[in-house]
Amino acid sequence: MSDIPSFPKSIGLLLYPGFEALDAVGPIEALNCLCNFPGYEDLKLSIISRSLEPIALGDRDFLRAQKYLPTHTFDTAPQLDMLLIPGGMGSIDFLPGTESNNVDDYIEYVRKAYGGYDSYKPLQYAFSICNGAILLAKAGVLDGRKATTNKSGFALIAQSGPKAHWVARARWVVDGNVWTTSGVSAGADGMLAFMEARVPKDVLKSVVGVMEWRRVSSKEDDPFAEWHGVEDVLPKQK
Amino acid sequence: MSDIPSFPKSIGLLLYPGFEALDAVGPIEALNCLCNFPGYEDLKLSIISRSLEPIALGDRDFLRAQKYLPTHTFDTAPQLDMLLIPGGMGSIDFLPGTESNNVDDYIEYVRKAYGGYDSYKPLQYAFSICNGAILLAKAGVLDGRKATTNKSGFALIAQSGPKAHWVARARWVVDGNVWTTSGVSAGADGMLAFMEARVPKDVLKSVVGVMEWRRVSSKEDDPFAEWHGVEDVLPKQK
Repeated sequence: MSDIPSFPKSIGLLLYPGFEALDAVGPIEALNCLCNFPGYEDLKLSIISRSLEPIALGDRDFLRAQKYLPTHTFDTAPQLDMLLIPGGMGSIDFLPGTESNNVDDYIEYVRKAYGGYDSYKPLQYAFSICNGAILLAKAGVLDGRKATTNKSGFALIAQSGPKAHWVARARWVVDGNVWTTSGVSAGADGMLAFMEARVPKDVLKSVVGVMEWRRVSSKEDDPFAEWHGVEDVLPKQK
Repeated sequence: MSDIPSFPKSIGLLLYPGFEALDAVGPIEALNCLCNFPGYEDLKLSIISRSLEPIALGDRDFLRAQKYLPTHTFDTAPQLDMLLIPGGMGSIDFLPGTESNNVDDYIEYVRKAYGGYDSYKPLQYAFSICNGAILLAKAGVLDGRKATTNKSGFALIAQSGPKAHWVARARWVVDGNVWTTSGVSAGADGMLAFMEARVPKDVLKSVVGVMEWRRVSSKEDDPFAEWHGVEDVLPKQK
């Protein structure tokens, strides 16, 4: 196992009001399964938000009933190795009519966590799901990088990162230590792809087998680009 | 739309300590997307547990960080049209070494809710995910029915329902008003199949398109039966 890179131990999940449930829980489920295997039992999860108040998925009755509990605030969050950033309507504050969804403080946290601050070392990995890429883009993390996001709001979301090359036909994109995945369900495929080089084959196979996940193993295998009729958006600025 | 059966309005999600996150959030995500469409904005969700205490996914650090908030107890739960029952290690109390996971009170609630009690009418639909089928089986709901459950623990879980015919090769099984789905991810496919006859085609297509879910549309399309080498378990009792 000496040729397998070490797996990140301290994992953060950034949650803001109006995040999309499966964006978060898809990749987390893969980690939930992984942590039952020897060598991964000491994985740590920090659920990070601006306060410890429960976080609702949205304003509709059905969404408001679903509240998630943070474990840490920006100030109390520990050193992280990897930060997961789900999408959701709550981060689309730059679209007309959604000005009330201000997540500037979350973006500032992403910027600091990615680059390192005070006694905190930089992240080993940033990982966004769906339009969670907006937070990475606005934090400057996607400048000069290739990235992807969901296909139903692709062109609009791409406006959040004019210095990025937004790849349309991609279940996920890896550029350096930055992973961006497509819409909602793609997050779990991205996480399983992340595990591919970092956990033993038999462990990964067991994780997929327990999840009974119909895995997309190729990052170019993305029928939703065509489904939603989207094309690459090239950088508009350097 | 007059030939489309009405969609259940009052949906319950039963959560017990040690449930599996994606079992619950997979089908719920499909409903989260659905409730954004006209005609479905008034869907109601009740998250039901034995108390209002936050519910952890398990004992490991990584799992203990994830706590879900119930909205109702067994006593305060409203009339439900449909009850979703996720699986998870927390319901496997009949296996050696797991005797501490007592969910008898949840099973009693399932039995009452399914059949109706006091002023409560019977459920229109019961829907289990993964080994959530254990609770249905122990509540007697699967007696004389076909059902399925996850494939990684299939034969063992089948012991919980000796009067059921457990179908091995099934992403999901429908028997009357009882839906049982296979492991973890199968819950979302089951819910999308449930929607198939109950929401307009264009709405269902949009839900799948937003979720970017690589949908399994046929209930017999289940490679995990072979993967885990399981076969049907026939009823041992009448």
